[in-house]
Amino acid sequence: MRYLDKLLSATRDTSLCVGLDPDPARFPGDWRGDARRIADFCCAIVDATHDLVAAFKPQIAYFAAEAAEDQLQRVIAHIRRVAPGKLIVLDAKRGDIGDTAKLYAREAFERYGADAVTLSPFMGLDTLEPFLAHADRGVFVLCRTSNPGGSDWQMQRLADLPEQPRLFEELARRAGSEWRRQPGQLGLVVGATYPGELARVRQLAPDVPLLVPGIGAQGGDAAATVKANAGGPMLVSSSRAILYASAQLQDFAAAARAAAEATRAQLQAV
Amino acid sequence: MRYLDKLLSATRDTSLCVGLDPDPARFPGDWRGDARRIADFCCAIVDATHDLVAAFKPQIAYFAAEAAEDQLQRVIAHIRRVAPGKLIVLDAKRGDIGDTAKLYAREAFERYGADAVTLSPFMGLDTLEPFLAHADRGVFVLCRTSNPGGSDWQMQRLADLPEQPRLFEELARRAGSEWRRQPGQLGLVVGATYPGELARVRQLAPDVPLLVPGIGAQGGDAAATVKANAGGPMLVSSSRAILYASAQLQDFAAAARAAAEATRAQLQAV
Repeated sequence: MRYLDKLLSATRDTSLCVGLDPDPARFPGDWRGDARRIADFCCAIVDATHDLVAAFKPQIAYFAAEAAEDQLQRVIAHIRRVAPGKLIVLDAKRGDIGDTAKLYAREAFERYGADAVTLSPFMGLDTLEPFLAHADRGVFVLCRTSNPGGSDWQMQRLADLPEQPRLFEELARRAGSEWRRQPGQLGLVVGATYPGELARVRQLAPDVPLLVPGIGAQGGDAAATVKANAGGPMLVSSSRAILYASAQLQDFAAAARAAAEATRAQLQAV
Repeated sequence: MRYLDKLLSATRDTSLCVGLDPDPARFPGDWRGDARRIADFCCAIVDATHDLVAAFKPQIAYFAAEAAEDQLQRVIAHIRRVAPGKLIVLDAKRGDIGDTAKLYAREAFERYGADAVTLSPFMGLDTLEPFLAHADRGVFVLCRTSNPGGSDWQMQRLADLPEQPRLFEELARRAGSEWRRQPGQLGLVVGATYPGELARVRQLAPDVPLLVPGIGAQGGDAAATVKANAGGPMLVSSSRAILYASAQLQDFAAAARAAAEATRAQLQAV
């Protein structure tokens, strides 16, 4: 199936994406602090929420810090088994020269079998190509991030270009025009904290898929995000507000489901 | 020991760094195509070259693509055993928000025990802090890369800053002044292909450590690099020209040593 068809099919009913950021220090009950429970924790979250979501986004750093690559593979295999139509976005923010990028693409798409991966554009267009060469997979490239330092470079105006766009605007414009291979293959990461900038990205790249983290724990407002997106293809990601909705082992999965339901409803209310 | 002291001690005799980019398709003789030989290959290169070099730079993508994290750990343990004074730079180009950056710092500095790690600055200053919080370790932040797309953002002039510096210049200036914790902890990656830009970085950041890849296979000229650096702390990295100097299993290590000797001599001739 074409990547864009997979994405559109997964997001037909909702744009909600659950970010899998498994932090053992925040695991419920007896599991607290036990890195051997990473896969159990994530699989329980998947079981409790998969009928409510479009996608899951495992953050690879949580697995890498614990030498738990095998558990990441278990989690992804579990998602494929219980929720076959859902999109899996590996949050890795890789970015390197061509030969190395090829290997990172193999890591994301072959080793882990992700549908899409997040990337950093700092090294330029050519470093994205080895990922786009996987015709049935997609990428989400960092464009405008919500962290304090996100403005350091992304908000700089570029002096030599017509109308001196901000860097994130020029990135969005290029993603919306020249940087495309198959439609939808190249998406952008835009934080939920600044809906005005999200709207600007959507204006410059009307049909580019957006991955919008920062709903929930990071303070982004669901309604403002949906309005700013203006109906384009989008995944809205929430992690901690869903994963850690309860600290009790008995009810953490039910609490995660309730939090996912609430977020999904907020996204649909607009 | 302070990180800068480690770096200065390692680079006392030479700035040569061997990049460990173990590609099974280029392994010698019977090892060709055998990903189980990654550690054997790297350890043989280490044995053959460690008395000639200041540092080793394993590129994590080569290990991740083959699910060979255990072999990366073996290689690093081997370097520590046979060449204890050498610097180990994990080439990973990570870059993410604070909570996630903490985990990547644990991956690089605790799991793998690297002395330094390469990072991407796209998400801004705050994303480097969790790495700099490890007081005895260092980072090398991408500044000016030699690949064709390296110009896409790094060469853009920033309209709102005095004298409209290029992005890589502003990054170098900030690394040389405000972004420092302990001296030397924050270094920059600058490709060897453009010695004029390397000289410019050195002008803006006189005592910031530089990691300069691209000598050898990528065409950078050793003499021009040393001149442009003007005596600051520096690692000059060569990978393929040393690793794949011979395709024969009997003599690949000796050929690697000869190639390392030749590169070291070029660096010293200036």
